[in-house]
Amino acid sequence: MKPFEGYTYIEGGICAAQGFRASGVYCGIKENPSRKNDLALLVSDTECSTAAVYTQNKVKGAPILVMKEHLAATGGKAKAMIANSKNANTCNADGVEKAKAMCALAAQQLGLDEKLVMVMSTGVIGQILPIEPIEKAMSELCGKLSENGGHEAALAIMTTDTFSKEVAVEFTLDGKTCHLGGMAKGSGMIHPNMATTLNCITTDAAISPEMLQKALSDVVKVTYNCLSVDGDQSTNDTCMVMASGLAGNAEITADGADYDIFRQALYIVMMNMTRLLAKDGEGASKLLECTVSGAADVDTAIIVAKSVICSPLFKCAMFGSDANWGRILCAVGYAPAEFDINKVDVTLASKAGSIDVCKDGSGIPFSEETAKEILLEDEIQILISIGDGEGTATAWGCDLTYDYVKINGDYRS
Amino acid sequence: MKPFEGYTYIEGGICAAQGFRASGVYCGIKENPSRKNDLALLVSDTECSTAAVYTQNKVKGAPILVMKEHLAATGGKAKAMIANSKNANTCNADGVEKAKAMCALAAQQLGLDEKLVMVMSTGVIGQILPIEPIEKAMSELCGKLSENGGHEAALAIMTTDTFSKEVAVEFTLDGKTCHLGGMAKGSGMIHPNMATTLNCITTDAAISPEMLQKALSDVVKVTYNCLSVDGDQSTNDTCMVMASGLAGNAEITADGADYDIFRQALYIVMMNMTRLLAKDGEGASKLLECTVSGAADVDTAIIVAKSVICSPLFKCAMFGSDANWGRILCAVGYAPAEFDINKVDVTLASKAGSIDVCKDGSGIPFSEETAKEILLEDEIQILISIGDGEGTATAWGCDLTYDYVKINGDYRS
Repeated sequence: MKPFEGYTYIEGGICAAQGFRASGVYCGIKENPSRKNDLALLVSDTECSTAAVYTQNKVKGAPILVMKEHLAATGGKAKAMIANSKNANTCNADGVEKAKAMCALAAQQLGLDEKLVMVMSTGVIGQILPIEPIEKAMSELCGKLSENGGHEAALAIMTTDTFSKEVAVEFTLDGKTCHLGGMAKGSGMIHPNMATTLNCITTDAAISPEMLQKALSDVVKVTYNCLSVDGDQSTNDTCMVMASGLAGNAEITADGADYDIFRQALYIVMMNMTRLLAKDGEGASKLLECTVSGAADVDTAIIVAKSVICSPLFKCAMFGSDANWGRILCAVGYAPAEFDINKVDVTLASKAGSIDVCKDGSGIPFSEETAKEILLEDEIQILISIGDGEGTATAWGCDLTYDYVKINGDYRS
Repeated sequence: MKPFEGYTYIEGGICAAQGFRASGVYCGIKENPSRKNDLALLVSDTECSTAAVYTQNKVKGAPILVMKEHLAATGGKAKAMIANSKNANTCNADGVEKAKAMCALAAQQLGLDEKLVMVMSTGVIGQILPIEPIEKAMSELCGKLSENGGHEAALAIMTTDTFSKEVAVEFTLDGKTCHLGGMAKGSGMIHPNMATTLNCITTDAAISPEMLQKALSDVVKVTYNCLSVDGDQSTNDTCMVMASGLAGNAEITADGADYDIFRQALYIVMMNMTRLLAKDGEGASKLLECTVSGAADVDTAIIVAKSVICSPLFKCAMFGSDANWGRILCAVGYAPAEFDINKVDVTLASKAGSIDVCKDGSGIPFSEETAKEILLEDEIQILISIGDGEGTATAWGCDLTYDYVKINGDYRS
């Protein structure tokens, strides 16, 4: 992971920050011969400032409706989060009832007001969620709560993910050592313009719910919202941050140097999580990172970078390690943004080197052999300059492979 | 093909109408061991009213720039069209020069003003188009011009297409027998909001350039622009119609019954061509036809139908014949249109039968076995009702398969 001065990567995921315990168990929501975890719990010792962003899909998972209701009732406070995989609890007539039942079960076991419990679900859409397995597992789930339980929880929210995603950093704020870490799950139905998938982040920094929401909305725009695996915007995407305040810093309640330090910690964790989500996109064999510079503004750069990252033809070419840069120009050209196509330069890069393939909108001679060597690596950078402006942005994605089709065509994932 | 009263399907493609001759040859633009046709020519005995629509991609193939210039110079008239495959002549510094050279070569051989020659190219982007093979083949190409040459021309514009696309109809206008037919090529880099791929249509009906353009722009909106194979909007898409007037009907110069009859002929040919393009989408094993009804207006219906047809996850599910309707709801939900998600019903159908899978936005019990039987067919209808409005539209696409990835990942197509 790329180093950032003043921030140190640490272990622990959602339990890296003080005051958080987590657990994950197999409860049996769906037949699961390997008994992989499918139920996660996160609990804070203190009432946390809590912020969240959700999918912009009109079809919203029932858990999202319940989270919104609870956060509105508490004014942005929460103490716990319960999550399941294998069933999205979406497009079900009894969805809200079941999502509330999950919160109530956790609240009862933990002795909390159920409004202080957040809830997330991921998995197949439109199948009734069985509540009995969750009820039966609740005592085990609470019994396993531990300051080292972050990884078990991260495992429990995985669906087609091939590895769990956890990132955490340590930093100093107001003279106090702070921690911020999170877990995320992918890995299909992932597209810009949403909070992307299930993401849960915790911190011991003290920050008001309003400033926490501001930081989250700001950072999500240039991280998760610049990620696309397949262009499908899920119904259940949720990204939540809980701040316990146990680090002892003066609570951040306004813009300023402290807010900037906190925002940067959030950026580092979410940006790295975004990279992990792209790297583990369904069927992916390569992480693709497209950086657009020279745009009139950041929004223009984001639009163009996303357009390239979303192109199926470009994604297939990257799978084949084929420097078919015309497909990049094509995707740049249909991006709904203003710029001069005759000022577009394209460079392909990886740890094997870099090569210019297009200058001023036209092809230039290049060594196909060198290009192939660069593209055979598993992390590829596509560097695109579209003019003389100051706007720069990065979008993340992955190649389109046989395995994507296999995962999504062979069985109901 | 679906029957339409008053219109009879006939053979002949772009030569079905009176006054048109065509040819196709192998000239060798790219190494091609099988010597498949790569150069096509279409010539009209008379000066034709000519209309065209093009890609909305900012990156436009040089042939499009030249066609626009020529049609502006002649006021919507043309007598010939030359087209090549295997090289898109796009993103090349000398692209316009080469496209003009193609027109000039044809004009010289045919004894025409070069402004009366249209030009189209399709193939790889960003490779210099060699003009010598075209020059050398010109005499053979003109020598082979024939009233039966439509099929050879249709073969010459194919790239990854597995079959040529030709549709023609006969109909009566102003007491005269008229013909309208065309050819098209797919089959990747195909997405709504453009004229889609190379398409050439001819008719012997008499119609002014203005009314021809109106009919084309109108019909393209509900046919080619409702087609998506992979979401990639090509740089070279062109759809052109030439009207020779040899049928002898009174020229259509305004709205009215005659215009409606002509417009319907154009719709029938373009709608069927759209179906053929979808059916032969790169790697496709199934034609998918999504019809949205009950929308507030046609535009809303189009947006929702396209959103479903473009979803990679839905496309993979269709490949697997999996009635994973939650993915349909997901794509309906992220469509940027206004409607009540709680009024959405979904039915899956094919010649094996039909089955309701979702009512009022929630799942309903259905036989997975019956659904599987329906989805194992190679033409699938997805019928979606989104409310009580009058707006209806259809979008066409295909499933996402291993072969799409193979075609686009394995070599520079």
